[in-house]
Amino acid sequence: MWRVMETPLNCAEEQQPPPAFPASWSTVTPQESPADRNDKGNAVGFVLVHAGAGYHSESKAKEYKHVCKRACQRDSPFTNAGMGSNLNLSGEIECDASIMDGKSLRYGAVGAVSGINNPVLVANRLLSEAQKGKLSAGRIPPCFLVGRGAHDWAVNHGIPPCPSEKMATKFSLSAYKRNKHKMELAEKVDTGFNHHSKKRRQASETENGSGLLDTVGAIVVDREGNVAAAVSSGGLAMKHPGRVGQAAHHGCGCWAENTSTLNPYSTAVSTSGCGEHLIRTMLARECSSAMQCEDAHQALLEAMQNKFISSPFLASEDCVLGGVIVLRCCRCSDAQPSPDIQAILVEFLWSHTTESMCVGYMSAQDGKAKTHISRLPPGAVAGQSLAIEGGVCRLVNTPTTVD
Amino acid sequence: MWRVMETPLNCAEEQQPPPAFPASWSTVTPQESPADRNDKGNAVGFVLVHAGAGYHSESKAKEYKHVCKRACQRDSPFTNAGMGSNLNLSGEIECDASIMDGKSLRYGAVGAVSGINNPVLVANRLLSEAQKGKLSAGRIPPCFLVGRGAHDWAVNHGIPPCPSEKMATKFSLSAYKRNKHKMELAEKVDTGFNHHSKKRRQASETENGSGLLDTVGAIVVDREGNVAAAVSSGGLAMKHPGRVGQAAHHGCGCWAENTSTLNPYSTAVSTSGCGEHLIRTMLARECSSAMQCEDAHQALLEAMQNKFISSPFLASEDCVLGGVIVLRCCRCSDAQPSPDIQAILVEFLWSHTTESMCVGYMSAQDGKAKTHISRLPPGAVAGQSLAIEGGVCRLVNTPTTVD
Repeated sequence: MWRVMETPLNCAEEQQPPPAFPASWSTVTPQESPADRNDKGNAVGFVLVHAGAGYHSESKAKEYKHVCKRACQRDSPFTNAGMGSNLNLSGEIECDASIMDGKSLRYGAVGAVSGINNPVLVANRLLSEAQKGKLSAGRIPPCFLVGRGAHDWAVNHGIPPCPSEKMATKFSLSAYKRNKHKMELAEKVDTGFNHHSKKRRQASETENGSGLLDTVGAIVVDREGNVAAAVSSGGLAMKHPGRVGQAAHHGCGCWAENTSTLNPYSTAVSTSGCGEHLIRTMLARECSSAMQCEDAHQALLEAMQNKFISSPFLASEDCVLGGVIVLRCCRCSDAQPSPDIQAILVEFLWSHTTESMCVGYMSAQDGKAKTHISRLPPGAVAGQSLAIEGGVCRLVNTPTTVD
Repeated sequence: MWRVMETPLNCAEEQQPPPAFPASWSTVTPQESPADRNDKGNAVGFVLVHAGAGYHSESKAKEYKHVCKRACQRDSPFTNAGMGSNLNLSGEIECDASIMDGKSLRYGAVGAVSGINNPVLVANRLLSEAQKGKLSAGRIPPCFLVGRGAHDWAVNHGIPPCPSEKMATKFSLSAYKRNKHKMELAEKVDTGFNHHSKKRRQASETENGSGLLDTVGAIVVDREGNVAAAVSSGGLAMKHPGRVGQAAHHGCGCWAENTSTLNPYSTAVSTSGCGEHLIRTMLARECSSAMQCEDAHQALLEAMQNKFISSPFLASEDCVLGGVIVLRCCRCSDAQPSPDIQAILVEFLWSHTTESMCVGYMSAQDGKAKTHISRLPPGAVAGQSLAIEGGVCRLVNTPTTVD
């Protein structure tokens, strides 16, 4: 595992040497289990998840890691988030989620949807329904649904609704009450003591009561080298009802593209952080494009620096908050075990400008998830500096017989 | 005015010579009227609008042109669409709109919003409110709101609501009834005669009852060279409630970027067509990026061919429907009238794969709007071929005194 920290000031001067990937993942012939296979029969090869970029306290580290571990080990890594999300201004939960399939390059998304426990399942269903072609009378199937319409479409397609009172947890409800109180206080202070308000306002910023676990993202590659990406979020605490963040926005919340004549690598990206910053910079797609350069670490470092922290799209922001998980893969041309067995080299990375980011990763070959809380180095300023880490894994694909 | 038609087959062989721009717009010193100025006191220099890419019948040509002319001549070119839009499956009007400012690179959007006559005004207000900085208790202001939340935010910010019964026109209501009947018929046919259904389905495709005037887009440049872009749409007829199309999607419905150290040209783009195709290809942003090449016509031709008709993101589609209006501008370095007066060269283009596209354009200097219905050449196949046309205009910027 390599690890590099950068601040905007010394980035240009300090050229990093190409990372020497340690053999932290050994090449093994997979012992396939039923859980390795998704509906289409493709074996899941490697999965990388995040449980939000933000601030993860040391005292809750165990809890965060446990969530990431569970997320890695489910058959579908795309089923978390929804319940326990942040409440909006009206005390309701509205979620965003999207998914992208690197093979078909299709995308499905829902925004500001209430009463669905796993909104990313709706996004996934929109994607697969669209693949079936036009609806009656030549109508184009939707790829992005919001609000009540999204909820009704989901229920009509067999996804069970979840009563609102079951969506909120005691943690999200008590955070809502504290936030509401802070807002009222901040607004009073703003009116009463206008010129002193800045300091007070900062002191009373809203908190994400359920930690940052309302955002979950996952990127996967199967043993054929097909990639996919997903993200799901309850959005910012005390957001305006109807607000849609990056998690529902094409190119902003997640991105996946299989290798093609133009692209030597398959790439997948999932983001977390301040939705408005991630939308304006289209960070998922930008990071995906950047990863076609030879040196993965340098490519992500430059993308996070130039397309996010120093992005002209965020020129007016002094604090740019976000994180990404990234994987890219290609066939290993140098060391194929045999003509029948192909090895795929997977490079996986994460980077964030927030205080911390919680990640987990697992190869289906060993079935054990590793989790990690990445942190900015001591003294680095969140929103202006970045952390970047990653690793490498080699997957071996044995030909399987079709039943 | 130059005019080129291309089909996918002969595109590679037939290299177009750089267009010889005719002096269809002469260089004049502007006689400024109050209508030339927007709220910030910047004179509007040139405006290009579209009233949708699709099929514009000859019999209604006069009507379409009149709409484009009116759109050009309003102080704000961003106030059309909304009323008279297509109805969704439930018989309601839900609109999408977005706006982007090339100077701040900020974006504002609303999706699936009902009961607002001019939804692009809400998008514009979101953009300007976000420029004021954080909300109380450190909350980030939203850039994208949908559904009921968007409606309530708009009303709270002084944008008047419009009762649903006033949003629909007799044309959109009767088209809804016909479409509903066609859908029922198509669904019966699909069930009863499955192998004959394709032909019948095509014959009974839904229609956009109010012509294609539900989508309106505008791109502008002021005399300082600042660009902006906007788009507003009622979406596809008989769409699913909650469906959000390209008009609300960052990078898909409109794009505007002022010149910078990286970009020699300021560019602005607005799109129309099948929302799902425009979302998956992010056509507005792609066209904007492409326009940094030297030859404007060739750049747009290649972008429409490679990033739209032959896009890998639409590989499964045999019919790719969309249109764009594009402008780019730069300071004329060769022939500045005097050190105090700066001339700006504006190149404006439109291209579409639909049967036709209705456009209008106007320089504030003469105040007369020109309108045009662009059509594919006879025999060209909509969805597989494209038309591309454009022109050039020189704006002169005289220093003005501030009141």
